[in-house]
Amino acid sequence: MTPELDLLRRIFAGAPFMADLGVEPVSAADGEVHTVLKVAPRHLQHTGVVHAGVMAAMADHTMGAAAQSLAPAGHWVLTAELKTSLLRSALGERLLCRAWVIKPGRTVSFTEAEVHAEAAGQRTLVMKASATMALTKAKS
Amino acid sequence: MTPELDLLRRIFAGAPFMADLGVEPVSAADGEVHTVLKVAPRHLQHTGVVHAGVMAAMADHTMGAAAQSLAPAGHWVLTAELKTSLLRSALGERLLCRAWVIKPGRTVSFTEAEVHAEAAGQRTLVMKASATMALTKAKS
Amino acid sequence: MTPELDLLRRIFAGAPFMADLGVEPVSAADGEVHTVLKVAPRHLQHTGVVHAGVMAAMADHTMGAAAQSLAPAGHWVLTAELKTSLLRSALGERLLCRAWVIKPGRTVSFTEAEVHAEAAGQRTLVMKASATMALTKAKS
Amino acid sequence: MTPELDLLRRIFAGAPFMADLGVEPVSAADGEVHTVLKVAPRHLQHTGVVHAGVMAAMADHTMGAAAQSLAPAGHWVLTAELKTSLLRSALGERLLCRAWVIKPGRTVSFTEAEVHAEAAGQRTLVMKASATMALTKAKS
Repeated sequence: MTPELDLLRRIFAGAPFMADLGVEPVSAADGEVHTVLKVAPRHLQHTGVVHAGVMAAMADHTMGAAAQSLAPAGHWVLTAELKTSLLRSALGERLLCRAWVIKPGRTVSFTEAEVHAEAAGQRTLVMKASATMALTKAKS
Repeated sequence: MTPELDLLRRIFAGAPFMADLGVEPVSAADGEVHTVLKVAPRHLQHTGVVHAGVMAAMADHTMGAAAQSLAPAGHWVLTAELKTSLLRSALGERLLCRAWVIKPGRTVSFTEAEVHAEAAGQRTLVMKASATMALTKAKS
Repeated sequence: MTPELDLLRRIFAGAPFMADLGVEPVSAADGEVHTVLKVAPRHLQHTGVVHAGVMAAMADHTMGAAAQSLAPAGHWVLTAELKTSLLRSALGERLLCRAWVIKPGRTVSFTEAEVHAEAAGQRTLVMKASATMALTKAKS
Repeated sequence: MTPELDLLRRIFAGAPFMADLGVEPVSAADGEVHTVLKVAPRHLQHTGVVHAGVMAAMADHTMGAAAQSLAPAGHWVLTAELKTSLLRSALGERLLCRAWVIKPGRTVSFTEAEVHAEAAGQRTLVMKASATMALTKAKS
């Protein structure tokens, strides 16, 4: 296991809400993180599509992990602001999220993410997100 | 029960993810909607604060309900874009969300929301959100 | 003149693009800043309404001034991220911008602004904006 | 000249604020639009970098043109909301903006843009932007 994937697993395993939703890390390399979620009935909207809040939470945490992987040693990443654009209805068995850092920094890092819904093996882009991450020095 | 609160209850009761999170409507009047969530361990981040994704989901749905309450008859509201600013760490027993419409429209409505965390009776503003809602004609 | 208004005047006088657009500070107190712009034909869109870019620039700078007025001594404010919602077409002789700080901080401050268009003495809310401001220590 | 570039030239020539800023269209194809701006002293901040408002205006208009190029016949595009992330200070002689449509629609289109600053032939990514565009039927 790479050090980046090891960090990633610890980031997700330690976050109760990610475990509760069922978001799982898949890979991490060079500041890019991939996660996956198996869609269950409890994730849905009244219309049968996946709730935007599920995807916003998944994108937020995946972007945070991407920013954390490039943060200077001894610094922790916190979301300052998050924007999501809902491009299409999300229907399918799985969600796949890819997050990356567009500009790492010492006080602020900028990240982006996209979420695809997978139905019968076909992937459709359903959400695009961006976030400003604030870095703080960990207390020792 | 007012017609607005009746609509609100149906909007939340029919949405599996809101029931799963535990978001409950409290009041609705004049395009403003209030909801509440009892914080449980599964809602948390690894640091012990409420996960930003929980609050984003709550704000999104509460803003959608606010926009729906002012939508022309026969139109349904869908989130096009959602932005959240995370002002402070959210600690406490309950979250309270207030959402309102800043400009209703026939094709697009603009909404805002704020989330307070309540700890030992003290309320702290922890998130500010805005969303662009798209209106579509319901198929008859 | 209050120290806050004095700081405000220096912030706008020293910024060539604000002088070029014609944005002028009006008042500053308790982290809230007001500015005004006299609309000229060069500020318009092809449809005759004020260009969204004029209002975005005005809101950005006014929010920056609001955040600067509450920043710790020796720190400078830079816009990290800016979001604007265009509620209505902007028609009139003057634009009035009001910006305030919703959460000041040591590394990040959160601000909001609204822009009204004034036509024949009537004011209409045309834009709502929010921004995440990053604070950096001034080099001495 | 392609029909897309012809539409683009009309979109910029008819917009007084774009002419005033000096934003010029360069190319348009398949829903992607490129523009350029020659930096002048009046475009600057007090610190000598290009003002964020200049780049926000340029990105907004270039994204609008991209969305317009893919809009159904007889529909006009209006910015509903715009978000910009300021990644780095913008220094140089020219700004180059590239805008594209990530999801065209009949009522709402989603667009993105990036702005590079060019100094001594070197290009640096300085801004990333996204916008939700609302489409309205042109009155005949």
